[in-house]
Amino acid sequence: MKTQVEHAVDGIITEQMATVAHDEDLSPEYIRTMVAEGKIVIPNNSNSTPKPVGIGKGLRTKVNASIGTSSDIVNYQAEVRKARIAEQAGADTLMELSVGGNLDRVRREVLAAVNLPVGNVPLYQAFCDATRKYGSADKLDPEELFDLIEQQCEDGLAFMAIHCGINRYTIERLRKQHYRYGGLVSKGGTSMVSWMEHNNRENPLYEQFDRVVAILKKYDVCLSLGNGLRAGAIHDSHDRAQMQELIINCELAQLGREMGCQMLVEGPGHMPLDEVEANILIQKRMSNEAPYYMLGPISTDVVPGFDHISSAIGAAQSARYGADLICYITPAEHLALPNEDDVRSGVEAARVATYIGDMNKYPDKGRQRDKAMSKARRDLQWDKQFELALMPEQARQVRDSRLPEEEHSCTMCGNFCAANGSKTLFDGDLQGDKC
Amino acid sequence: MKTQVEHAVDGIITEQMATVAHDEDLSPEYIRTMVAEGKIVIPNNSNSTPKPVGIGKGLRTKVNASIGTSSDIVNYQAEVRKARIAEQAGADTLMELSVGGNLDRVRREVLAAVNLPVGNVPLYQAFCDATRKYGSADKLDPEELFDLIEQQCEDGLAFMAIHCGINRYTIERLRKQHYRYGGLVSKGGTSMVSWMEHNNRENPLYEQFDRVVAILKKYDVCLSLGNGLRAGAIHDSHDRAQMQELIINCELAQLGREMGCQMLVEGPGHMPLDEVEANILIQKRMSNEAPYYMLGPISTDVVPGFDHISSAIGAAQSARYGADLICYITPAEHLALPNEDDVRSGVEAARVATYIGDMNKYPDKGRQRDKAMSKARRDLQWDKQFELALMPEQARQVRDSRLPEEEHSCTMCGNFCAANGSKTLFDGDLQGDKC
Repeated sequence: MKTQVEHAVDGIITEQMATVAHDEDLSPEYIRTMVAEGKIVIPNNSNSTPKPVGIGKGLRTKVNASIGTSSDIVNYQAEVRKARIAEQAGADTLMELSVGGNLDRVRREVLAAVNLPVGNVPLYQAFCDATRKYGSADKLDPEELFDLIEQQCEDGLAFMAIHCGINRYTIERLRKQHYRYGGLVSKGGTSMVSWMEHNNRENPLYEQFDRVVAILKKYDVCLSLGNGLRAGAIHDSHDRAQMQELIINCELAQLGREMGCQMLVEGPGHMPLDEVEANILIQKRMSNEAPYYMLGPISTDVVPGFDHISSAIGAAQSARYGADLICYITPAEHLALPNEDDVRSGVEAARVATYIGDMNKYPDKGRQRDKAMSKARRDLQWDKQFELALMPEQARQVRDSRLPEEEHSCTMCGNFCAANGSKTLFDGDLQGDKC
Repeated sequence: MKTQVEHAVDGIITEQMATVAHDEDLSPEYIRTMVAEGKIVIPNNSNSTPKPVGIGKGLRTKVNASIGTSSDIVNYQAEVRKARIAEQAGADTLMELSVGGNLDRVRREVLAAVNLPVGNVPLYQAFCDATRKYGSADKLDPEELFDLIEQQCEDGLAFMAIHCGINRYTIERLRKQHYRYGGLVSKGGTSMVSWMEHNNRENPLYEQFDRVVAILKKYDVCLSLGNGLRAGAIHDSHDRAQMQELIINCELAQLGREMGCQMLVEGPGHMPLDEVEANILIQKRMSNEAPYYMLGPISTDVVPGFDHISSAIGAAQSARYGADLICYITPAEHLALPNEDDVRSGVEAARVATYIGDMNKYPDKGRQRDKAMSKARRDLQWDKQFELALMPEQARQVRDSRLPEEEHSCTMCGNFCAANGSKTLFDGDLQGDKC
């Protein structure tokens, strides 16, 4: 079976491409060209055919929600509920990142519960299994890792974050810069670095990259190049180790694409606001515009409890400057496993951020909804306002909880309503694009 | 009695300047120079001597919280509670913007409840009184307006937003551009425009600007030049009417300063992300760096219910590019009068935003806390993390609600903790600024 990339190169517009073209109001031929060039991906799996969601150049910036158990909190029903909440709240993709309990079970139950493309990080289960089986994650057998990736593909995942870009050269850069202020923060990445150090061996996912690609291609799964050496602290942002891994990931994105596989590149993490533009420019340049999957970024280290907001501030910049998929961050980040409320808050904040970023990424079509909303506000058309709201349910709740005496106004200004006051004064002046 | 500006020009360092210098870790002489040049204000009132809070060049970006009744919801106790919540949540200044009930009573009760500098908009009460007394806001007697401003100063307000910059020339610009897509959205501004149109007269606050300044100077109150013609819609951002008012406000800022009064200039409102930098550059240039008080900006029109986040995204840019005081926006914006929870959420989101903006405004001192936090995270020192958190209480709540089995980790990763895993691998490599 051919992949989306191979079909696109052959000039074939797949059902997935046609759906994305329709959803994004673009031509199928544009989508095909971009998929062929590796600038758009549509995570897929021939076993499960998830909802086609396009990620990349010219498309609406998408939001990913991550869920999953930890060793402390294993509740299969709760993870299924979180998955459904993420979908209802408007997430475009979902990552199932469990590391506690029966990992096959939670993956399969989550996959069955949603229509979204679901991704994961195969290294998690690989290292969990090795710990259980051999007493240490450092005893992981690479052959078992490759087998596991295939089994997980078989289950229907649409994309996989795999840490292929960590190699011994990159670890040397980490040592030469005297390690890091905030340390390593990627779970899979850190375990892989540990494995490499303890076994004095190259990363098998780098060494046998073609084998990773071959497995994913078989199922048309999208390979997301994980960033195991991303900075987890503002002070470490864009250090040499992180950039070294990005170089390798961009190189692998091109290689994988040439092999006919859909490829994503992952980005940080923790970054001050003014570095976001440069980060994205460099990733786009080095990867020949591979779709970029950013983890926010979180733009300060000091607001635990509010990292859905610190990352929304970063993510608006990411989307503005060209990131294609934004991983949400929840209020529980740095503190605890997210619960159902956290998942909802995370998706909502990320949707606000990507919408705002897209207003700059696509200055025309990104603002049509704003234009309509401002007219509905001027004219005090409340139903129209809720219709145009990105998240209408919550907006209605706020208004309904405090209804005004006069139906057309709101309790903020009551009978001191500016919109009402100015209407009679200037409505005769409205002309042209102001109507 | 002399004002802060007059003392500063005379070379005197007031108690207020000394306190601000201490709080901001800057020299008293620097503060004095900036106050003399009108680049820093310290809202004050000789009757009430509020907590000295510096706003302007070289200082931490401050957060204002606005509260107040509306005609629909009048609850004096609730407004006092909101004021206290805003102060506890970390607001730096407070605006009391009531337009419902006994306005003298709510102002005085709020002033008595907090130590923060409190501001208001005198036009609100002026137009409310005129409506009650004469049946129409358009029948406001300018003499009564000036008397009211003085009475309100007498009560102890530290700053007043007064719409001096609206004049007939500006209204002509509004007409020539065929009005506006989103209309006028400033309550006081719209009522003043209506008054001017109905009476065919110039704005008395513009015409007799020296009289406004003389009243405020008498009490050392800071004059905040309101923006009655600010855009209330993305589509109207930086239209000619808004810019015309900004020109006049910047001119008045200089005039007022030359007359010895502390002056702030107010900014919008609704603005797409990529226009924030230009807006601030132009305000700073035209006003010779008068402190700038931005209302966010809200960076999209379509997220009612989440405008604390859309404005946090805008406010981070504002602070980054030089705004000095940010007015919070609550989740109730565009929908209803904010309740106590909304006030808290608004302050929290604005504090996250201004902190992040200051990381770029002050790249060295703005990031020291982040650096310390990332080390505490690397070393899994939880108490230290809470100590460094901008809002520690909420962070503790999240962690305590889901405590891990192993004390040093958290329930996000449990025994799959990257920080723990990488510690043993690289701690020997730590050197220099990484320690």
